[in-house]
Amino acid sequence: MQRDLRGDEALNFLLVGDLVGVAVFAASGASAAIGKRLDLFGVAFVGFVAALGGGILRDLVIGAVPPLAFADWRYAITAVLASIAVFRLHPHLTRLRRTVLVLDAAGLGLFTVTGTLKALTTGVPPVGACLVGMLTAIGGGLARDLLTAEIPVVLQRDIYAIVALGGAILVTILHGIGFVSALPMTGAAVLMTGLRLLALRRRWSAPVALP
Amino acid sequence: MQRDLRGDEALNFLLVGDLVGVAVFAASGASAAIGKRLDLFGVAFVGFVAALGGGILRDLVIGAVPPLAFADWRYAITAVLASIAVFRLHPHLTRLRRTVLVLDAAGLGLFTVTGTLKALTTGVPPVGACLVGMLTAIGGGLARDLLTAEIPVVLQRDIYAIVALGGAILVTILHGIGFVSALPMTGAAVLMTGLRLLALRRRWSAPVALP
Amino acid sequence: MQRDLRGDEALNFLLVGDLVGVAVFAASGASAAIGKRLDLFGVAFVGFVAALGGGILRDLVIGAVPPLAFADWRYAITAVLASIAVFRLHPHLTRLRRTVLVLDAAGLGLFTVTGTLKALTTGVPPVGACLVGMLTAIGGGLARDLLTAEIPVVLQRDIYAIVALGGAILVTILHGIGFVSALPMTGAAVLMTGLRLLALRRRWSAPVALP
Repeated sequence: MQRDLRGDEALNFLLVGDLVGVAVFAASGASAAIGKRLDLFGVAFVGFVAALGGGILRDLVIGAVPPLAFADWRYAITAVLASIAVFRLHPHLTRLRRTVLVLDAAGLGLFTVTGTLKALTTGVPPVGACLVGMLTAIGGGLARDLLTAEIPVVLQRDIYAIVALGGAILVTILHGIGFVSALPMTGAAVLMTGLRLLALRRRWSAPVALP
Repeated sequence: MQRDLRGDEALNFLLVGDLVGVAVFAASGASAAIGKRLDLFGVAFVGFVAALGGGILRDLVIGAVPPLAFADWRYAITAVLASIAVFRLHPHLTRLRRTVLVLDAAGLGLFTVTGTLKALTTGVPPVGACLVGMLTAIGGGLARDLLTAEIPVVLQRDIYAIVALGGAILVTILHGIGFVSALPMTGAAVLMTGLRLLALRRRWSAPVALP
Repeated sequence: MQRDLRGDEALNFLLVGDLVGVAVFAASGASAAIGKRLDLFGVAFVGFVAALGGGILRDLVIGAVPPLAFADWRYAITAVLASIAVFRLHPHLTRLRRTVLVLDAAGLGLFTVTGTLKALTTGVPPVGACLVGMLTAIGGGLARDLLTAEIPVVLQRDIYAIVALGGAILVTILHGIGFVSALPMTGAAVLMTGLRLLALRRRWSAPVALP
C-alpha cells in the first residue's frame, strides 16, 4: 500500500497521544469494573478493553493486523498498570472524580485525532475515516458498558459521541488541506477536550424522541 | 486473490440489494433505540450498527478491509438518514408496524443473498459461506439487541435465522451450478422474504428444550 | 509472510486440540442457552459462538482470514453437533455437571496452547501472543455471556483467565527456547487443566477491591 508522506509526522503524534489516552480510558474501565464487584483480573480486563477496544476495532477495520494493542507491548502494559493502580487506590479516588472526568475528556480528544489520522493515512475515504475516528474514541467505552451489562452511556443523553464525530470531521478537513503537523492536531484534540468539558459543565444533552 | 468471473454480475446485484436492506435494518434499529429512550445520537448509532454490523462482520471475516460500511459513504449515509427519519416520524409509525415487519423480512432475504454471494466470490468454502451469509443477515439484529441490553430476539422462539440459513444454503447451491445472475438471486431473496412472512402469520417457531 | 519452521509441527497439534476444545465449549454454550429458554437455533448459535468466538477473534487479530471457523467446515459442524447433542440430552446432564467442568478445564488448556502458538507462528510479538492466547481461551465464554445478557463469569471471582494468562506465558517461553513439539505443548495444556481443577476444588479466587 502506498503511504501518504504527510502521514509520517502524524504517526509520531499517534504514539504519544495514544498512550496517554490508553491510561485514562483504562482508569475509567477499571472504575466501572470495581463498581460491579469484579475481581482483580476482571478489573484489569475491563480496563484493557476500555482502553484498547476502540483501537483494536479501528485496526481490524483498516486492516492493520495484528492491532497495535497486540503488536506493541507498551499499549497493553500501560492499560494493565493503570487498571491495577485504580484497583489499589480507588478508595482515595472519589475525591478525584473531577480529575477523572477531565482526563476522560482528554482521552476523547486524543483518540479521535489519532484514530481519524490513522484511518486517513491508510487510505480510508473521508466519510469512513470520520466514522473510524469516532469509533476509536467511543468503542472502548461501548465495550466497557457491554462487559458490565449496561446500556452504553455514550448512547444515552449526553454530548460525547457528537464531540468525537465533530472532531473527526475537523481532523479530516485539516488532513485534506495538508495541516497534519503536531500543532494543528494538538489544537484539534484540545478543542474537543474543551468542548466536552463545557458540555459537562453546562449539562448540554442531545434531544430524545417524543414519547 | 483470483476472482471468480461469475462474481461480477453478482457484485452489481450486491449494491442495490445492500442499500435497500441497510435502510430497512436501520429503521428497525432506530425503533428499538427510541424504545430505550436513547438520544438522537444513540438512535442514529444503533440504527447504523443494526444496518451495517452484519456487513462489517462479514467483511472482516472475508478480509475485505476497510469494510464497505467505511469504504463507501452511501452505506453510512443511508443508515443515518433512515434512522433520523424514524426519529422524527416515529409517533406516526405505530400504524406502520406491519410495513416494518414486511420490510424487515425483505432485508433478511436481501442481506442473506448478498452476504453469501460475497463470501463465495472471495473464495470462502461452501459451509463457511453459508455461515457468513446467515451472520450478515442476523449480525446487525444481534448487535442492536446487545447495545440495548436485551437477549437477542433472533435467538429466541422465532423462525428468523433458520430462514437465513436455509436461504444461504440455497444461494450456495445456485452459485455452485452457475446460476448467479440477478434473476435466480432475486428469486432466492423473494422466497426467503415470503417464508419469513408466512412464519410470522402462522406463528411458526423453533422447538425449545424440555425443562 | 515468512513462516517459522518450528511452526509446522505446532500447527498439526493445533487441529486436534482445537476440535476437542470446540466440542467442549459448544456444550458449555448450549447449556447456558438452554437455561435461558432459547430455541434450538439459539442453542446451536450460542454453542457455535462459545466454541468458535475466541478462535474467530484470534484469527481476525492475527490477520488469518477467513477465520478457521469459516474456512474449515469441521469446526462449525463439530460445534453444531455438540450443541444439538446437549439440546437433546440435557435432562440427563445434571449428573454430568462434574464431567462438564472437567471438560471445560481441558478446553481452557487446549485453546490457550493453540491460540498462543498460532499467534507466535504468525509473527505476533511475545506480549501480544500471550494476550491473544488468553483471549482465544476466554473469548468464547465472554461472547456466550454477552449473548445471554450476563456479566461474563470469567470476569468475576474465579481463577480462570489467570490460568489462561499463565499458560500463555509458559507456551511463549517454551516457544522461545524451541520446545514446540507435541510433548511439551500437551504438558502445558495438562498443567493448565490440572491447575484449573485444583482452583475449582480449593475454591481459589482472585481478590476483589475494598469497598
